Amino acid sequence: MDFKLSRKISAVDDALISEIFKLADDPSMIPFGGGNPFPALFPKADVTKIAADILNKDPVGMLQYASSEGYIPLIETLKKRMRDKYGVDRDRIFITTGAQQAADLVAKCLLDEGDTVICEGYSYMSTMDTFRTYGAHLVGVPLEEGGMDLQKLEEALAANPNTKLIYIIPTFQNPTGITTSPEKRKAIYELAVKYDAVILEDDPYSDIRFRGEPILPIKSFDRDGRVVYCGSFSKVIAPALRVGFMCVNEGLIPRLITGKQCTDIHTVPLTQHICHEFLTSCDYDAHIERIVGMYSEKCSLMIGEMEKNFPENIHFTRPDGGMFIMFYLPEGMDSEPFVRKAIENGVACIPGSTLIPEYGVSNAVRLNFSTPTKEEIVRGIGILGKMLREM
Amino acid sequence: MDFKLSRKISAVDDALISEIFKLADDPSMIPFGGGNPFPALFPKADVTKIAADILNKDPVGMLQYASSEGYIPLIETLKKRMRDKYGVDRDRIFITTGAQQAADLVAKCLLDEGDTVICEGYSYMSTMDTFRTYGAHLVGVPLEEGGMDLQKLEEALAANPNTKLIYIIPTFQNPTGITTSPEKRKAIYELAVKYDAVILEDDPYSDIRFRGEPILPIKSFDRDGRVVYCGSFSKVIAPALRVGFMCVNEGLIPRLITGKQCTDIHTVPLTQHICHEFLTSCDYDAHIERIVGMYSEKCSLMIGEMEKNFPENIHFTRPDGGMFIMFYLPEGMDSEPFVRKAIENGVACIPGSTLIPEYGVSNAVRLNFSTPTKEEIVRGIGILGKMLREM
Repeated sequence: MDFKLSRKISAVDDALISEIFKLADDPSMIPFGGGNPFPALFPKADVTKIAADILNKDPVGMLQYASSEGYIPLIETLKKRMRDKYGVDRDRIFITTGAQQAADLVAKCLLDEGDTVICEGYSYMSTMDTFRTYGAHLVGVPLEEGGMDLQKLEEALAANPNTKLIYIIPTFQNPTGITTSPEKRKAIYELAVKYDAVILEDDPYSDIRFRGEPILPIKSFDRDGRVVYCGSFSKVIAPALRVGFMCVNEGLIPRLITGKQCTDIHTVPLTQHICHEFLTSCDYDAHIERIVGMYSEKCSLMIGEMEKNFPENIHFTRPDGGMFIMFYLPEGMDSEPFVRKAIENGVACIPGSTLIPEYGVSNAVRLNFSTPTKEEIVRGIGILGKMLREM
Repeated sequence: MDFKLSRKISAVDDALISEIFKLADDPSMIPFGGGNPFPALFPKADVTKIAADILNKDPVGMLQYASSEGYIPLIETLKKRMRDKYGVDRDRIFITTGAQQAADLVAKCLLDEGDTVICEGYSYMSTMDTFRTYGAHLVGVPLEEGGMDLQKLEEALAANPNTKLIYIIPTFQNPTGITTSPEKRKAIYELAVKYDAVILEDDPYSDIRFRGEPILPIKSFDRDGRVVYCGSFSKVIAPALRVGFMCVNEGLIPRLITGKQCTDIHTVPLTQHICHEFLTSCDYDAHIERIVGMYSEKCSLMIGEMEKNFPENIHFTRPDGGMFIMFYLPEGMDSEPFVRKAIENGVACIPGSTLIPEYGVSNAVRLNFSTPTKEEIVRGIGILGKMLREM
């Protein structure tokens, strides 16, 4: 059967990344390619106990159809957290099947074919793909120290009056590890007001901070409700629970419910309940401390090894948290052949070309430090360093 | 904030149904309106035991990111079932977050704005809404005894050369309870071949058969892979697990994976595992027998009460299984005021106008018999009967 595919699904070019993931799909490969949490950090005992308790206590509540907006105790807990941590008080919480679904539902509610979405110059592949499946025109704004180049952002907004959405991962960004400064956050918000765009603020990593003071999200100075803030439990509890959330102006709620009913009706109550209980009855802060401790060590180790092993002309980011580091081959080089060679040598990583809103050639390579062991970090950076020195 | 909504989400007019669900949202209401399984039938003890066992045995597998195609043992089990039950052997299984997501992903892969989707004259509201959120043009084909009017179906296909999809619930259809005959199934398939359309065959109810021999799905005589068959565990295990599946030609798999990664990445492994274990290690057949026994009694009771209480000019369907009965006010009447009055009188039900592909006035009313108790069935039909006689 030769299916006549939609224009929109056809706009996603994932041939290269699929090929790379296939090449890298070998348990002996050093895993710098993906973005999996380190499995030893999953709160296995707590999750097991919470699941057993609730299935005994409220089996029907965990098995019957449930609300599209989400499990009310979890909504209340997240509402309180947004208020206590960020002073965000006026908005609603809407539970999603992972933060990925937040991007899908926002796109469904706001994007018509041809509308522009402005992204950071390197951004999270799967959410860019989500926008592509709505026929969006993606425009990247170069990243510098402290976030997007503001002049380029304003130029992009002026050049694309059909911009509906600015998509930004302000803290420990995927893929670069860059954090947007407080000043840039404010300026980006004001530009969104000036050009009447909605901001989708994707914040899955901010709890994983190794150093420095927390920075308020853009949502915290949202005067008119144009910021849709998304959080996730995938990095801080467990991805397989598929629970994320939006903090969003109530004006969008009825259409988010429509969108949710058209996609998966509601998120699994059992996994929502697990997140709620873990947040409220377990020692969440101690758990985060364990994650921060381990990822911080791995990040420092990776950076130390890069400093020792990489030639001086190879620049890289030094994130204050999160899960990713980006390094750059010399200007003008294409990192794709390098990545293929690295995989041949047993080190999985991701070429920047797959992480660009407009697609195209890139000299960047994304490395993940949450998944590999310390021994793998030392060995993998050693291999990459040797390749770079021989280049 | 005044959000500029997409044309597509705006094409869903769920104001009436939202209002009706809000009016009917009262625990004292007799629940003929929804489509919930009867909670006493949930296999609570089995689900609790399976969840505890797997979280103890393979916690990391239940917590880490997983395959977008689904949990391999469940895929293998479903592949075998499709072969053993229906002789379907060449296709692939793709796990979805409820069968609702199957419709969403098929729409994402196949539909461009303005493409036509042909539906049964009354059809499942949420899936029609899914098509609407892709900007599809919905065309309804009148239902008669044994399924769609074939001449009208061919006329619709000829009049809409951009028909990408025929959407059909062939067995114990929601909302009418009608079952498409084997002859019509074959004819519908041949028309799909002639006009080169894909068939989306939605089959959540066929295990809940009260009488008569099972009828093979359209998928069983699919020569060229144009039938996407969807199954669900929502009605036969528990809806809150959010596990459904597609049996689909392998040509569509890469793009379904793309779509899945852009929406929720993967379905929850824990709930997939629960479905798998329940299918393979528990007595699934005995469980289905219990559901069939109870729903069959309730359906007979409801029909008996309708025969006793409804005036002779009120016609209704007599389903051989499933969860729904439809009755029709006299020709030309609008059932919406009747439904509002019924809700005032404490009986929730759904007006046909919300179940028509093109929207519009309808004399039909959908009744659900799986959720109410027997006492509620007797009392509720008594109230509706009194209203009809006084009309």
